[in-house]
Amino acid sequence: MSRWQPGARERLHAAAVRLFTEHGYEQTTAAGIAAEAGLTERTFFRYFADKREVLFDGSPALAELIVRGVRDARADLGPLGMAASGVLAAAEFFDDERRAYSRTRQELIDTNPALQERERQKFAELADAIGRELRERGVADLPARLAAESAVVVFTTTFRQWISAGEHRTFDAIATEMLASLKAIVAG
Amino acid sequence: MSRWQPGARERLHAAAVRLFTEHGYEQTTAAGIAAEAGLTERTFFRYFADKREVLFDGSPALAELIVRGVRDARADLGPLGMAASGVLAAAEFFDDERRAYSRTRQELIDTNPALQERERQKFAELADAIGRELRERGVADLPARLAAESAVVVFTTTFRQWISAGEHRTFDAIATEMLASLKAIVAG
Repeated sequence: MSRWQPGARERLHAAAVRLFTEHGYEQTTAAGIAAEAGLTERTFFRYFADKREVLFDGSPALAELIVRGVRDARADLGPLGMAASGVLAAAEFFDDERRAYSRTRQELIDTNPALQERERQKFAELADAIGRELRERGVADLPARLAAESAVVVFTTTFRQWISAGEHRTFDAIATEMLASLKAIVAG
Repeated sequence: MSRWQPGARERLHAAAVRLFTEHGYEQTTAAGIAAEAGLTERTFFRYFADKREVLFDGSPALAELIVRGVRDARADLGPLGMAASGVLAAAEFFDDERRAYSRTRQELIDTNPALQERERQKFAELADAIGRELRERGVADLPARLAAESAVVVFTTTFRQWISAGEHRTFDAIATEMLASLKAIVAG
């Protein structure tokens, strides 16, 4: 058996989601996931630090897309406009093909405190990354922090709406509307 | 020894902060805290679920103050104005006497992932509580969520500024300024 298994990550991921959904997250082990995927437990741990991480394996790619969106945004958009450009860039990640999986994944997270905790950590890291990028672009510390945190609010509320039952609009269409709603509410 | 120890909670709290600061959070046990306070470990667990909770024992009182501030706010302030009234009400909790302790406590949280995780959970619960209260007051679901999350952004950035080195302004003076900054940034 070679060290590198073609498609192993995808097989482990699919097996994990299948087992989490059918038997519950708590009842599923890394060894069980590996067996379901026809791989060894050692292989599992070559790809994922723990079973929680399986559901967050897209986080680095998503964060990179968002940060790049902030980096490439027009400077005259201002701090929140630049941060929101990052959120809009996430639409490339959240395409229609991903929507069904995102729903299943969120149902798992919403019923498990350990997963919710990891999700909150990822959002906090995302806000930090956006804030860092805004400061790199010359935004002062306080507006960078406020804009980054507000962008994460837009991101999370957009995501919730995007996966809601019966929702068919694209991620960026919803994000644009959410940003307008935030502006209206903050303006009072 | 009677079941009720006068001042036991305060003694345990002070002992915990002393030991966390002197020996580190990880190195301190519930039994150690109890011994330092001249009490038994059983008494410790009558007051706190675990050693993490010692640093969050003010959270329910703070959340209640904030939610009451939202409940008592003038309706014509709009969703964010009402939510921000809750943040301003937190000034009663964060008075000058508490500032030194708040600084020590935050230093402990900032150096320990388990404490940061608990803090993020408390902020998420606070956003939920503010959102619930806004909905009780007739605000629709989406504006309630956006206003509640924005209010928590104002709360956390205000708190960080309030405990920053050399800061002497009151919590509500900073909160008022933070809300104005948020409005300016969101308006672009």
